[in-house]
Order: sequence, then C-alpha cells, then structure tokens
Amino acid sequence: MNSILSKIADKSATVGVLGLGYVGIPLALRLSQVGYPTIGFDVLEDRIEGLNAGLSPIKHIEHAKIAEMRQAGFVATNDFSRAAECDVLIICVPTPLDKAHIPDLSFVTATMESIAPYLRAGQLLSLESTTWPGTTEEVLLPYVTAAGLEVGKDFYLAYSPEREDPGNIHFSTRTIPKVVGGHTPACLEVGTELYATIIDQVVAVSSTRAAEMVKLLENIHRSVNIGLVNELKIVTQKMGLDIFEIVDAAATKPFGFTPYYPGPGIGGHCIPIDPFYLTWKAKEYGVHTRFIELAGEINQAMPDYVVGKTVEALNKQGKALKGATVLALGIAYKRDVDDMRESPSVFVMEKLRDWGAEVAYSDPNVPVFPPMREHSFELTSVELSPEVIAGFDAVLLLTDHTDFDYDLIRDNARLLIDTRGKYRDGGDNIWKA
Amino acid sequence: MNSILSKIADKSATVGVLGLGYVGIPLALRLSQVGYPTIGFDVLEDRIEGLNAGLSPIKHIEHAKIAEMRQAGFVATNDFSRAAECDVLIICVPTPLDKAHIPDLSFVTATMESIAPYLRAGQLLSLESTTWPGTTEEVLLPYVTAAGLEVGKDFYLAYSPEREDPGNIHFSTRTIPKVVGGHTPACLEVGTELYATIIDQVVAVSSTRAAEMVKLLENIHRSVNIGLVNELKIVTQKMGLDIFEIVDAAATKPFGFTPYYPGPGIGGHCIPIDPFYLTWKAKEYGVHTRFIELAGEINQAMPDYVVGKTVEALNKQGKALKGATVLALGIAYKRDVDDMRESPSVFVMEKLRDWGAEVAYSDPNVPVFPPMREHSFELTSVELSPEVIAGFDAVLLLTDHTDFDYDLIRDNARLLIDTRGKYRDGGDNIWKA
Repeated sequence: MNSILSKIADKSATVGVLGLGYVGIPLALRLSQVGYPTIGFDVLEDRIEGLNAGLSPIKHIEHAKIAEMRQAGFVATNDFSRAAECDVLIICVPTPLDKAHIPDLSFVTATMESIAPYLRAGQLLSLESTTWPGTTEEVLLPYVTAAGLEVGKDFYLAYSPEREDPGNIHFSTRTIPKVVGGHTPACLEVGTELYATIIDQVVAVSSTRAAEMVKLLENIHRSVNIGLVNELKIVTQKMGLDIFEIVDAAATKPFGFTPYYPGPGIGGHCIPIDPFYLTWKAKEYGVHTRFIELAGEINQAMPDYVVGKTVEALNKQGKALKGATVLALGIAYKRDVDDMRESPSVFVMEKLRDWGAEVAYSDPNVPVFPPMREHSFELTSVELSPEVIAGFDAVLLLTDHTDFDYDLIRDNARLLIDTRGKYRDGGDNIWKA
Repeated sequence: MNSILSKIADKSATVGVLGLGYVGIPLALRLSQVGYPTIGFDVLEDRIEGLNAGLSPIKHIEHAKIAEMRQAGFVATNDFSRAAECDVLIICVPTPLDKAHIPDLSFVTATMESIAPYLRAGQLLSLESTTWPGTTEEVLLPYVTAAGLEVGKDFYLAYSPEREDPGNIHFSTRTIPKVVGGHTPACLEVGTELYATIIDQVVAVSSTRAAEMVKLLENIHRSVNIGLVNELKIVTQKMGLDIFEIVDAAATKPFGFTPYYPGPGIGGHCIPIDPFYLTWKAKEYGVHTRFIELAGEINQAMPDYVVGKTVEALNKQGKALKGATVLALGIAYKRDVDDMRESPSVFVMEKLRDWGAEVAYSDPNVPVFPPMREHSFELTSVELSPEVIAGFDAVLLLTDHTDFDYDLIRDNARLLIDTRGKYRDGGDNIWKA
C-alpha cells in the first residue's frame, strides 16, 4: 500500500481514465492539471484523434484546455494494453437503460474485459459510472479476484460517483465534494488519498454500495421533485392557476421549500435513467420504488402533454396540427448546453411529426440535428428573424437557452407555446403548457 | 379605501384576530407590538381567561410576551359582536380533515357565521387558514355579499397563508416573507399595506386562489419529500444500507439536492393534512394528485413499520411484544416543541398497546399525556435514569428532543430502536428503524 500512496503523494502515479466523455474529460483535465501522468482510453476513433489534436468534443470545455493537457503529456488511446502502465484506473463509461428499462452495464463489462489482462498488484481501480448498489462488488470484483489479486492487500477497489454538472458556472470538478466508498478500509484509504489530491472535499462512506446508493438518491430526488411539479402543473392548469407564479411565491419561504419548475419532460444522461437502476435492483430484494415509477410515468408523459396543448391552441384558431408548421426552440436537453441525450424536445418533435406537422427547430448550440440512436431528423437550425418566426403556425419554447432573443420571439410569434415559464406575464399569443 | 389605508398607516386600525392558537397568538403579538389596537377572538373559555391573565398557552411563547401585549391593550374575548369595532379581521382557525380525509371547514364557517352580522363598510377581511384553492371566493365571499357589501369597493377581501414554524429559532413572524392575494386589485392593495406594517417582506400574487395554492404547494413539497425518503429507508434497509449515512453523504452535493430524513411518520397540523385539501379539490376538476396520495400512504404506514421493527428486534431475543415493557422517547410531533397534533409517536404507542405491550413514555416537553380527540393514555412522563431505562425491554427513540441525554439512553437501554438516526454509528443494542 505504501507504494501506491507514495506515488499518489508525489503525483508520479500514472492515471488511466477509461471513457472520455462528459465525465472522463473533465476528470482527465483535473488529473493532468495537478501533475499526474494521464492516459485517456476510449473506443471511438474520432474522439481519440480529436483529443490528441487538442480539440474538445464538448461545447462547455474549451479547445485550449485540451491542448494544454496534451502539452502536459496527456494522450488518448484505444490500446487498452497500456492499462498495465497505470497505477490508477478510473472508469467513466455510460450506464444506460435498455428498451425494457433494465440497466445496461455493457460498457462497464466491456471495459473490464479490455483491461482484465493488464490488472496487476499495486493498482487502484475506481468506478465512477452511476449504477445500482452492489455493482462494484458483484461486477468488478470478480475480474480482480480472477486475476489472482487480493483486494485490500495488493489491489485497491473503490466506487466514487461522478457529480459533473455540465454548464454549471458555479462549480467545477475540483469544487464539487466527492463521495468515495472502498471495498475494504485499505481500499477506502487509497481511494480517498487519490481523490483528495484533485478534489477540495472528499466524503468517505462505509462501503462501495453506500457510495453507489448516494448517487442514485441524488438523482431520484431530482426526478421525483420534477415529477411532482409536473403533476401539479397539470392540476393547477385545470384550475386556471399558473404553476410558475405559485412556485415563485412558494420559493419566498426561507426554509422547508426548494423550488423546482415544470417543463416538457426530463433529459440528460442522469435524471431519466439513474433512478431505474434502483428500481431494478430493489426487485431482487422484493421491494418496490413507487415514487421513482410514478415520477418516471409523469415525466415521460410531458412531451404528450405539450403536444396536446399545441393541438388545443391551434384548434382554437380552427387549425389542425396536421399540415401546420411548427418551430421548436431549443433542442438540447437543458439550458445552455449542446447535449442532446434523452432531450424531451426531440420526443416532442417526433410526436409533432407523427401528428403530421411540418417541424423545424432553432438552437444556437446545435447547428445541425445530430445522428442519434433512437431519433432521426434531417434538419439544421433555423436562423431567427421576425419574418421566420411569423412564418410558423406555432412556436414551441422547449429549452430556454440564454442566447434566444425572447422579445423578438414574443413580438413575432403568431402562437407561442411556453413550456418553461419564460413569459411569466403571458400575452394574447402565449399559451402556457 | 383611503380611510382604511390611513388607519393602517397610522396604526389606528383596530385589528381582530379570530382563533388564538399557534398562528393567531404570534400574529396578535406582532400586531400589538407595532401599535395596532388588537382584539383576540376565540370560543375556548380557558384560552381567553389565560391570555387575559397574561399567560401563554404555548411552550415556545413566553408568558412575559403575553403580559406585555395585555399591557399594550390587547384583550381576548368570545364576544364576536366586538368584530364591529374592528377595521381588520384576520381568521386563523384550524382547518382539519374529517375521518374520510375530506376538508373540514367548520371552524372557518362557524367564524364567518359569528362575525357576519358585524361586517361593515371599510373593513379588510383576511383568511390565513390553510385551505383549498377557491375557499376565499367560494366560502367567504358569499357572507360578504350577503351583508350588502361590495368587495373591492367598500370592503376588502384577502387570503394570506400563515407560515408559522413553531420552534424555529432562525425565523419569526416578522422575518418570514408573507404571501398575499386579493379578491380585487384594491383588496390586494389594502391587504399588502396591512401586512407590510408587520412583516418585512410581503409577496403579492395574482389572486386569492393563487395564494391558497402557494401554501398547499409548500406542504405538499414537504410531504412528498418525506414520503420519498421513508420509502427509500425501507428499500435501503432491505439492502443492508443505512439511509441516514446515504442522505448525509448526498447532502454534500452543493446544488440540486436538499436533505430530508426519514422518521416514524409525519405530524403536526400541516404536513399530514394540508396536501389532501388539494386532492379533494382536484377531483372537482377531474384530475388526480398521485404524489400526494402515495406520500400519504407511505408516511401513514411508518408507525406500523416502526412497530414491526420492534417486534423483529424483540423476537431476535426470543421475546414477544405482548407483555414486553416499552418506553417511547419523545411524544410531541417534532423536536423541541410540546405540540402533540397528529404526532406519529402517539400512533406508535397505540399500536404497541394493541399488540399487548406495556407502554410508558418520556418527554421533557409533555409532562402529562394530554387529552386528545382521537387518542387516550393515562400516563405521565417517566423521569430517565440508568435504572429506569434499563428496566424496559425496549426503548424507542421517536422524537429527538435536544434535552434528552443520548449517552445515558444508549448506555443503559437493553434494546434501543432509533427512528431518527440519532445514533449514526450504531451499537450492539441499537436497531435502526
């Protein structure tokens, strides 16, 4: 143990980051910044070439930062045999759900398969991917013991959930406290020491399973609170009340209340997916996660609700949605990012198309509709002008990017469906949905 | 309107506070403090006599404050004809649920019946009781119009939800922002002016119905978040994880997460009751409030869960709950208050008795088990000592008052069921429930 601890202390430990996406890249940047020799692993050729050329694949990370990391010695590779060089291995691969809402750990297991031959004594292996409680023990540990290593004695196994919040200007990788659980006390010690060199505050918990549950709780909390306010949006709209006014007023209570706002659904890699990891695992224990399932049901129904409101609004003008021209504003899943993962805007666009509408979109962060596994649109972002906006039968505000000219939109839209409460004061042409 | 506004401005308006309980007394204190001639109305003889003798009926309000208010001219009465003297009438009566979970507005309507003959031009009437959106319009307004008054012209009608938080040492009546909605713009103006003289920040909303919904949202938010963490307690306990450790660790995330902790159920006049006011009203609009009902179901099942854990823990020692001696620690509904309304501790005690246990309790704030509408125990608070604690087969920590000697309890209890996570580190004699 002293060997790995001293390599961490003097930053001579080589660190391999496995999975170079929204989590792996900021982590590699931070590791490199404090002086660790850092190797990035991925299977995407484009991603590797781009990073090695000093280019950032993520909007909110500047190219200059990648170039700087390259100069400091970082290299991206798809040669997993180089895992043998690493003293520390950190897995940051996606953990999606399959179509039946069952956890898909294939990226984790594929990564373990790739590095298994290169596991050796003295290494620390840490998983950062969000997953069900027990994954580190039940999925990772067997690879380590199969390699003849004794965890806690000559190998260290930890789980430390990523807490990246793309687009958050108040917190960075370094300033977001990091939870760590170890398979044994020695594993916890080594994991804590490693993260303490790159993160201001490390929070040790009693096991990898506890650490896994912490991350799920964080995202379950968000999913349920958003589900609740989405349900209350439906209830209050029926009563002729404006949920945004009500949340704003409730938020003036200085204790006991945290504002959440409704929207056209939930997106991103975390909130729509992670909670169901617990749902799946809970069944093994014979217990149910009813809040998670209710939140999922309500949040997933929101795109239909928005489309229904559009149909209703057009119908009031004697128009059908079929044949109507509709402009979707904002297709990234949240404000000021370019991330399209699970974006509810895309579900809304698909449903509009299914109803027979002619759909266009405008998003300053997404100039061309990207290839997606489940969705396909051959569209490029429309440039907004008074004429363009006025040319559509309906304009739907789905993601409230800062860069939109909201006065221009309000002043020219014939019919504006506001799903974000951006137009609190309303207007004759505005429907709140 | 100028008449009432100038009486508010120079504090010459006589203010009647109807209902002298957890809300009315702090409000009367504050009104009297800024100089309004204040009259308190109630139907309870004892309450009136006590207040007029300068005695506080509430633990967290000192007698001296009542005496001071008396010296400033405050008087309590059950003579509702004195409502005629009042320029401002503020209703602060309870709004419970009946046994079928249907809103019971009988205290509100009884109050309106009592004051109806004395309503007159120039008055402001404000309702502070928590209730369903539409109550002010649908229940109060008819009394006013029946009196021949024109609301917004010669009479002012408002709704302003109370936000009292008994035992909160950080905020007082004055420093908790107050939401106000008026039946007309003139009503809003008069209501806002009145409250602005006693509260630091007044938050105007667009209608009495919006203001009614704000208060419900605040308590629905709490009920659902507590329900969620109670459900997750059950799930994580099955998985062998400690929910308190997990919430503590999640709470280190500096954004997007607010910690709520599980317990033996929910109590007090607000959280178990208010959400169902919306549930009831929503049905009129053909919509459902599924989060509220799920939270209610789970929170109401918590006392049974705690009793079940007690049965399990005793069983492990080969003991039945029948005939066992059990000590309940803390019977007020939350920490450091003496308020017994809807206290989950009482439900736990009843269930223990039903199982055949011999039940005692200790609560520094409740020396004698008070008469309650739905519950009956002839008990006085047990003084805690090593011998007393060790004499019980099981000790249940239900309400974690500051005044308990937690080391004494842990060191002497044979079996300690901790429902509050007070003993984070556990112990051989401790069961977390």
